[in-house]
Amino acid sequence: MIVEVVAVGTELLLGQIVNGNAAHIGAALAQSGFDANHQQVVGDNLGRLESALRLAISRSDAVIITGGIGPTQDDMTREGICAATGRDMRFSDEYAVALRTRFADLGREMPESNLRQAEYPDGAELLPNPKGTAPGLVLDHEGTLIFAVPGVPREMEQLLAEQVLPRIRAKAGVERVLRSRVIRTWGRGEAAVGELCDDLYRQGTNPSIAFLASDGEIKVRITASAGSLAEADRLIAPIEAEVVSRLAPAVFGFDDDSIESILLGLLVGRGWTLGTAESATGGMVASRITSVSGASAAYRGSIVAYDVDEKRRLLGITDTEVESGVVSEAMALAMAQGAREHLGVDVAISVTGAAGPDAHDAPAGTMIVAVATPEDAQARTLRLPGDRERVRTYTATSALHLARLAVSGVWWDR
Amino acid sequence: MIVEVVAVGTELLLGQIVNGNAAHIGAALAQSGFDANHQQVVGDNLGRLESALRLAISRSDAVIITGGIGPTQDDMTREGICAATGRDMRFSDEYAVALRTRFADLGREMPESNLRQAEYPDGAELLPNPKGTAPGLVLDHEGTLIFAVPGVPREMEQLLAEQVLPRIRAKAGVERVLRSRVIRTWGRGEAAVGELCDDLYRQGTNPSIAFLASDGEIKVRITASAGSLAEADRLIAPIEAEVVSRLAPAVFGFDDDSIESILLGLLVGRGWTLGTAESATGGMVASRITSVSGASAAYRGSIVAYDVDEKRRLLGITDTEVESGVVSEAMALAMAQGAREHLGVDVAISVTGAAGPDAHDAPAGTMIVAVATPEDAQARTLRLPGDRERVRTYTATSALHLARLAVSGVWWDR
Repeated sequence: MIVEVVAVGTELLLGQIVNGNAAHIGAALAQSGFDANHQQVVGDNLGRLESALRLAISRSDAVIITGGIGPTQDDMTREGICAATGRDMRFSDEYAVALRTRFADLGREMPESNLRQAEYPDGAELLPNPKGTAPGLVLDHEGTLIFAVPGVPREMEQLLAEQVLPRIRAKAGVERVLRSRVIRTWGRGEAAVGELCDDLYRQGTNPSIAFLASDGEIKVRITASAGSLAEADRLIAPIEAEVVSRLAPAVFGFDDDSIESILLGLLVGRGWTLGTAESATGGMVASRITSVSGASAAYRGSIVAYDVDEKRRLLGITDTEVESGVVSEAMALAMAQGAREHLGVDVAISVTGAAGPDAHDAPAGTMIVAVATPEDAQARTLRLPGDRERVRTYTATSALHLARLAVSGVWWDR
Repeated sequence: MIVEVVAVGTELLLGQIVNGNAAHIGAALAQSGFDANHQQVVGDNLGRLESALRLAISRSDAVIITGGIGPTQDDMTREGICAATGRDMRFSDEYAVALRTRFADLGREMPESNLRQAEYPDGAELLPNPKGTAPGLVLDHEGTLIFAVPGVPREMEQLLAEQVLPRIRAKAGVERVLRSRVIRTWGRGEAAVGELCDDLYRQGTNPSIAFLASDGEIKVRITASAGSLAEADRLIAPIEAEVVSRLAPAVFGFDDDSIESILLGLLVGRGWTLGTAESATGGMVASRITSVSGASAAYRGSIVAYDVDEKRRLLGITDTEVESGVVSEAMALAMAQGAREHLGVDVAISVTGAAGPDAHDAPAGTMIVAVATPEDAQARTLRLPGDRERVRTYTATSALHLARLAVSGVWWDR
């Protein structure tokens, strides 16, 4: 079953709203195992809407149109369906009565323009919309199911779940499901991950593999289509194990995991508390950790020592250590040990460096992370490209990544 | 000028990410006065990508393709352009050298697959991408400008502004210029701002006014079209003055200003230093302040005291103060005064509260901000809806907003 989403609305083209409907429908279709090859967005223009629908109908088993079924003149999805399928417009006296009753029940007078919502292309069926006045539509046109649903997300979502998906499933006969597993990694580039998994990428269409990069994180997505979720999981399992064994220790989690939530889980498992001491990232590591609900199970606090005096005052950094250089592995290690003592925690993460754009004691982009645990303490120097915000964000994630490794007993300098 | 956006990526069809790029580009095109009639989304499939591009090229003066230009095998925008335009693929030795140099400068080995990014359709020009390794592309194909930009939003946005839009404008031979001025406010809702400016909104098409809400901030955008930038500025000036006088003190800045950069400027002007003491926002306020390049001119450091012991230890909070309640205005004021002393700074911002989802000493969403300066110290209690991340983000912005007011000598409890 190939299903295409056509979103109607000039406000989408103008970027006044983001097309979240297409993403919602896309995810629901994927979960049901249907193929989605294309999405289109078209404005409130009858000629262009007709062309977009003709194209969608020509290449799909089902077309889901969102938006353009309201009562105003710029709502022309009904007219567009008539034009694209060569059908006349009909009028539902029954729905007109229902509309009048609905308004009467609310004690309001119905604007006559609302009667546009009782119109429908010849052969179509009206679909009840419990949350709004515009009914959805379904039309079986020469073997292609054409649906029209509202653009209002909560109305669309209900019609999709209750009316649209069941009808597409019924048409499809078999119920194949699509299952995705996302393996999340940090510390290797997209190209390196792609090379390590190249043969897996080439060999499979089911399961298939895709690589996704976002903010420096590389995700490997394995997707399988099968008759049941359990069968899809069985198809995915061996590929997943292979990818993990090739990419570990860069693999920090799966699906919705975050490095910070994994780190906190590991800390709680070992009964260790955590603190942070930041300079160049200025609180970003602390903020990431405390974004996790329940962080207080392990996290105690942080010192952001943005200048040398604060490093002396709050972290007990000595003049000798300052002389070794503010941006140095020695300083990062002293900050981490100072944080362990002054915060009274088992594990400390520290960051110092020059985030840019100007050099401060080191070239811009030179960032140093250290982690101290009851077992060991090590530092790592990063040289990062990009602007200040990118450097800080990458450094914060790297710090959390190294802390995760250290708490797992995996040290990089051995 | 008719411009079409084609977004490439199976993850968009599967609804794993929302197509924010199309909205961003759509808004930028509208702002420049170009027409956008269609958007398409297509997966990582060469045949379908070719068809989508042929269709877009056939009906547009310019086509902007987002995504699919990375180094991995499923990135096939370059191949798609070749197929749709009947061109051969070329290889840029020059860019290959630049790529190798870039990796060498970072002390890393370059995976050979990165060289895919040096490929380009015959006749195309590579567009520099300062924030990533994949260059953009521009190709003039039989009068249609075809652009390829990265799918990573920050990389796409820079290429759009610096390379794509100027070239489309040049092709259009635009003689009139469009100028926008954005007035940025915090602390009033969208409806209130809209009502206060309703007559200005109604009276003008040139300049025109739009209201934009994002993350609780309300922006008023004034846009004028004129023969020159100077003339557009003259049209904007009186409306801008009127809007500012109606909305002050909620107005914190203009265009690319941030509350944190304005606050730092005010602090430097008064010769005051700044520190922060955070509980529920866990470093977010500190992180926002240190995101500003040059923050060290005023910012000294922060204490994140996530539990009561740390509040005692690091901020000198007394048992009596703890007994008054961890989520109380008294506690926030004690934290701010403690931060002034322990950090040795002139001005301190403090935050305590219950960010949720669980209640901690107060209902979830109860957040308290205090600001202490050499002149006064005041607290404010916020009751915020939404999830943990929204509550934390709004609170951090509110804390910066109140600090800006306090440093300007504008106190809310007078």
